[in-house]
Amino acid sequence: MTKNIAILGASGYTGAELVRIIATHPDMRIAALTGDRKAGMAMAQVFPFLRHMDLPDLTRIEDVDFSGIDLAFCALPHATSQSVIKALPADLKVVDLSADFRLRDPAAYQKWYGKAHDAPELQKQAIYGLTEFYRDDIRSARLVAGTGCNAATGQFALRPLIEAGVIDLDQIILDLKCGVSGAGRSLKENLLHAELSEGAQPYAAGGTHRHLGEFDQEFSRAAGRPVQVQFTPHLIPMNRGILASAWVQGDAAAIHGVLSDRYADEVFIHVLPFGTLPSTHDVRGSNFVHIGVVADRVAGRASVFAVLDNLTKGSSGQAVQNANLMLGLDETAGLMFAPLFP
Amino acid sequence: MTKNIAILGASGYTGAELVRIIATHPDMRIAALTGDRKAGMAMAQVFPFLRHMDLPDLTRIEDVDFSGIDLAFCALPHATSQSVIKALPADLKVVDLSADFRLRDPAAYQKWYGKAHDAPELQKQAIYGLTEFYRDDIRSARLVAGTGCNAATGQFALRPLIEAGVIDLDQIILDLKCGVSGAGRSLKENLLHAELSEGAQPYAAGGTHRHLGEFDQEFSRAAGRPVQVQFTPHLIPMNRGILASAWVQGDAAAIHGVLSDRYADEVFIHVLPFGTLPSTHDVRGSNFVHIGVVADRVAGRASVFAVLDNLTKGSSGQAVQNANLMLGLDETAGLMFAPLFP
Amino acid sequence: MTKNIAILGASGYTGAELVRIIATHPDMRIAALTGDRKAGMAMAQVFPFLRHMDLPDLTRIEDVDFSGIDLAFCALPHATSQSVIKALPADLKVVDLSADFRLRDPAAYQKWYGKAHDAPELQKQAIYGLTEFYRDDIRSARLVAGTGCNAATGQFALRPLIEAGVIDLDQIILDLKCGVSGAGRSLKENLLHAELSEGAQPYAAGGTHRHLGEFDQEFSRAAGRPVQVQFTPHLIPMNRGILASAWVQGDAAAIHGVLSDRYADEVFIHVLPFGTLPSTHDVRGSNFVHIGVVADRVAGRASVFAVLDNLTKGSSGQAVQNANLMLGLDETAGLMFAPLFP
Amino acid sequence: MTKNIAILGASGYTGAELVRIIATHPDMRIAALTGDRKAGMAMAQVFPFLRHMDLPDLTRIEDVDFSGIDLAFCALPHATSQSVIKALPADLKVVDLSADFRLRDPAAYQKWYGKAHDAPELQKQAIYGLTEFYRDDIRSARLVAGTGCNAATGQFALRPLIEAGVIDLDQIILDLKCGVSGAGRSLKENLLHAELSEGAQPYAAGGTHRHLGEFDQEFSRAAGRPVQVQFTPHLIPMNRGILASAWVQGDAAAIHGVLSDRYADEVFIHVLPFGTLPSTHDVRGSNFVHIGVVADRVAGRASVFAVLDNLTKGSSGQAVQNANLMLGLDETAGLMFAPLFP
Repeated sequence: MTKNIAILGASGYTGAELVRIIATHPDMRIAALTGDRKAGMAMAQVFPFLRHMDLPDLTRIEDVDFSGIDLAFCALPHATSQSVIKALPADLKVVDLSADFRLRDPAAYQKWYGKAHDAPELQKQAIYGLTEFYRDDIRSARLVAGTGCNAATGQFALRPLIEAGVIDLDQIILDLKCGVSGAGRSLKENLLHAELSEGAQPYAAGGTHRHLGEFDQEFSRAAGRPVQVQFTPHLIPMNRGILASAWVQGDAAAIHGVLSDRYADEVFIHVLPFGTLPSTHDVRGSNFVHIGVVADRVAGRASVFAVLDNLTKGSSGQAVQNANLMLGLDETAGLMFAPLFP
Repeated sequence: MTKNIAILGASGYTGAELVRIIATHPDMRIAALTGDRKAGMAMAQVFPFLRHMDLPDLTRIEDVDFSGIDLAFCALPHATSQSVIKALPADLKVVDLSADFRLRDPAAYQKWYGKAHDAPELQKQAIYGLTEFYRDDIRSARLVAGTGCNAATGQFALRPLIEAGVIDLDQIILDLKCGVSGAGRSLKENLLHAELSEGAQPYAAGGTHRHLGEFDQEFSRAAGRPVQVQFTPHLIPMNRGILASAWVQGDAAAIHGVLSDRYADEVFIHVLPFGTLPSTHDVRGSNFVHIGVVADRVAGRASVFAVLDNLTKGSSGQAVQNANLMLGLDETAGLMFAPLFP
Repeated sequence: MTKNIAILGASGYTGAELVRIIATHPDMRIAALTGDRKAGMAMAQVFPFLRHMDLPDLTRIEDVDFSGIDLAFCALPHATSQSVIKALPADLKVVDLSADFRLRDPAAYQKWYGKAHDAPELQKQAIYGLTEFYRDDIRSARLVAGTGCNAATGQFALRPLIEAGVIDLDQIILDLKCGVSGAGRSLKENLLHAELSEGAQPYAAGGTHRHLGEFDQEFSRAAGRPVQVQFTPHLIPMNRGILASAWVQGDAAAIHGVLSDRYADEVFIHVLPFGTLPSTHDVRGSNFVHIGVVADRVAGRASVFAVLDNLTKGSSGQAVQNANLMLGLDETAGLMFAPLFP
Repeated sequence: MTKNIAILGASGYTGAELVRIIATHPDMRIAALTGDRKAGMAMAQVFPFLRHMDLPDLTRIEDVDFSGIDLAFCALPHATSQSVIKALPADLKVVDLSADFRLRDPAAYQKWYGKAHDAPELQKQAIYGLTEFYRDDIRSARLVAGTGCNAATGQFALRPLIEAGVIDLDQIILDLKCGVSGAGRSLKENLLHAELSEGAQPYAAGGTHRHLGEFDQEFSRAAGRPVQVQFTPHLIPMNRGILASAWVQGDAAAIHGVLSDRYADEVFIHVLPFGTLPSTHDVRGSNFVHIGVVADRVAGRASVFAVLDNLTKGSSGQAVQNANLMLGLDETAGLMFAPLFP
């Protein structure tokens, strides 16, 4: 039975990516789209690539009739989501793609986002949306908080290793190479083609990136003790994709074994043969994750590489995967499309 | 009922694109993949982006059992296709993606490809695969010749105008901007990232590009008299996409009217509102075509812009669309996926 | 003897390009840099790539002491330049890089820029800065108006042909492929890497681009009668470079001969052997222009291709070339650096 | 007095980059260019971007008259250089850009390059060409071995820290992001624009990259004990540039202090203010290095980021800098040109 879907904040990249995915989803139908500043416009005006679809026009949130909606995706900016979701019907299932409900601890939220949370009650209910690790909770959740795209990539590489205790918890380095769409449709000089193409640079270096709040929360939970990874993302000239290079201390073969076992039944996560290296090219536009493990020449050290598409598995694809679970659909429904290569 | 599909020459870009499309096609199943030089390899080794699919290994053509195959796509290099197809079972439906069967006149083939045709009998049977203009013939065809990707783009922009007689047939200029995947997986210095990114250049200028054989054949047929357009492609730093800028003499409003009428019922071809300009960004990875028309400030002159993805609508998507017709399936089956943006 | 230079509006791309060029100019020294919104900042903060240079901080224009300045480059936005230059000392030599003084006819200025000119007296004095065609006037000018980058490219390809009368003046088509730095450092969605890379699109199509004002003025003067070309630029994913494809009617050999003769003594303009095609890759970051001519298969038709770097020969390099003349220096001083390839 | 220069192997990227630099060098003149497979061709045919220069045609090495040559750059492939240089006049000054003379220990050469060295006597004489650390030796050298581009980048970031003992020598991680021109003009599928743009991937992971031979040699010498860093390069879609992210254990302020002091008098190496991050955009096409240091949130840990252009400071610019010293010229002659931005 087709489910009616609303997308709040459909004029940004993650909103558009949701529409792209749902375009071929067998069991979902877009019933409402909102975009405050672009209310009244046709989606094809905002995103001409969606011209072929028969979509409702953008409206304001307050003009949506939620009575027939089965689930709402909330793709609004950070800090906006919390007040919007608070005002939605209490029984409406919601997948939030912002950062607002990712951190369980209000103090952690305050620390990383610099303000008190506006909806602390909701924060308590929210389930962290890393599907492969919270599947059962998500199935029965009312509100799921989509993970950060960097946070997802790093966790796919490291979380099973931390749980299994096969790496040194105090020597974890995450060096990320990130595509630019992760910055959203924001107008900044360093995101202009002229200033971003043909070059690379670190940003939020040394432990200041907000996704560290998620790493700390989730890795500490997985380890049963505080874990603080070192994490710096680097902006490189690609539009989609994150490549996580994790530098760890432990036995490479054991590491490969733990990851292979952990993900053996996961449809979307592929652990490559030992020594094979992944590429973001091979997951672009898809919901798949590729993970590779190599031994370092320095004994007892290894590298784990994970790649995914930040807008799909790192955000909107993950959101649809979670929505499938919440709506009682097949988890992979609408998500088995292949990557775009070349 | 699911159709069994063979892809001959699956180790190039158009072969891989066929697999990508068929991955989510509801009525097709890949039963055989061939790749002579890579026979024995798993498809995931040649194209790791297809790792999630359960695909047969690459074999040699002579090792394929065609008895259960409903249709074969032939994605082999130009000049190779003709001898391979000649040797296939005579009742096997075939969609050829090479240039081998595009030109009906053996003399034209000789002129543009520099050799006599090896399968002149088959050449007579072949239907030119521009779906929107040969739909009925394709439905009952045994052999369909996929069009050139540039040839398709130019025809979508111009063919209805030539048929309708609303433009001067002796003053047609086609200035194409082409993505690099159109050159295939060939190893040439000018296709290296270091030499192709960040710059643009014309190639095959002045009327030497082979797709002119198709333009001449099809436009002359449409006009009922010889028509020779001027056509130069330009290589620009994008992987997928063709932007055709057609400079024509005629009334812009009439031109827009003819195109709008002609394509009103075509699912994959969208004529934009008068004066709206298309972008290859909006069709990347999809089977859609966007067409825009503007009046020039010089009276009686106009520009028509058409965009498509050379690997999808310009090649493998077109091939699947034709195969759908040949197999009695819904023409749009498996082809309604949205473009990838950004 | 070293000349003291001021750059007004040094915080944009053309301002920065002036600094880059002057960095190795043997006879120029940067004495003042202005940037209203960034006044007080070090140039290395605004453009870290200039960190190695010993440069004055950015100031406001009103804080510059012009008494020791030999020449000012004015790299301010269109419409701002005219009032700023009006207020400068009347004997200060000025090279303006904006559009403000390119059109001699106040009515043409009004038409293309939508407002009356604020400094009509200055407009009369200004010399159009296409060096190779106004060299003598520039030598003795007080105010030189830098050309549009598209306008320069098109004129290098066509102007000698119009003067020589070897092409049909009513059938000139200019299809330009333009790098994104031509749009300046402006914050617009379509200039973001995510929306500009990997795709192409026309803009200002059909005769609405302002550089047509320059084409009309200069080509009509060259022809001795009104000439209106058809011109559409296309935005492609490269940062620097313009490729002009001119579609003309005339004898290709004669066209090549006229261009070869006209530019035989020009250091910066290279006419390639007949049939050889130029590439923007080969002029990136330099003051050189490459021009190629091919005959079309349609008799009596030809294509002329010209490439240059919009920020160098199309703007700041041209400006330095003109300043060299105005200051009595060698015309090529500081401009013979090679392009950057790859 | 102008020095006569020969470039052996001028048809590759580093050879072309040497010509680009020497184009504006005040004291060098190109007297001979060789390129075995392209002997007899004009340089403008091989590299049209050098068309404006008056250059000798490419010849075979055996046809060069070395009697008037002051210095030869040898830009031949690895393993070819050693036999060619062995056959050159014994008093000819040579700067080799290949890997052949970088490793002092024949066993190390054998280990990393898989063969015995053909010119072990020459290997003993060769000076390692990291100018800022071997300046005096280079001044009097007959043969200088240009460093690996990755090796140079890593050493600029780390070498002073290892010498000063301010970081833990057993916990050094070098995560490099590399532009594609480092792979040279080689024809490989993964270097095609279609397969390299828009994505990122590690290569030579886990300690297999040959530049580790240089790191081991130089860092162990600097430390006075064996040092083995962990090093993995990543191929990203940019043509020029290397970004080294060094993850180290030590006091960040002390690290910044050591680097600032060590490079205070170095013209080409700029240590940014503490906490400021460098970008490859800011050094493209130049001989400059920018270095940034940040403290990690984990106490006692820091990151050091270094950027340079692999073809300039990482190879041909370094070579000219060394040649300047060897020829008694000013070390910075011809090398103070600014980076190309944007």
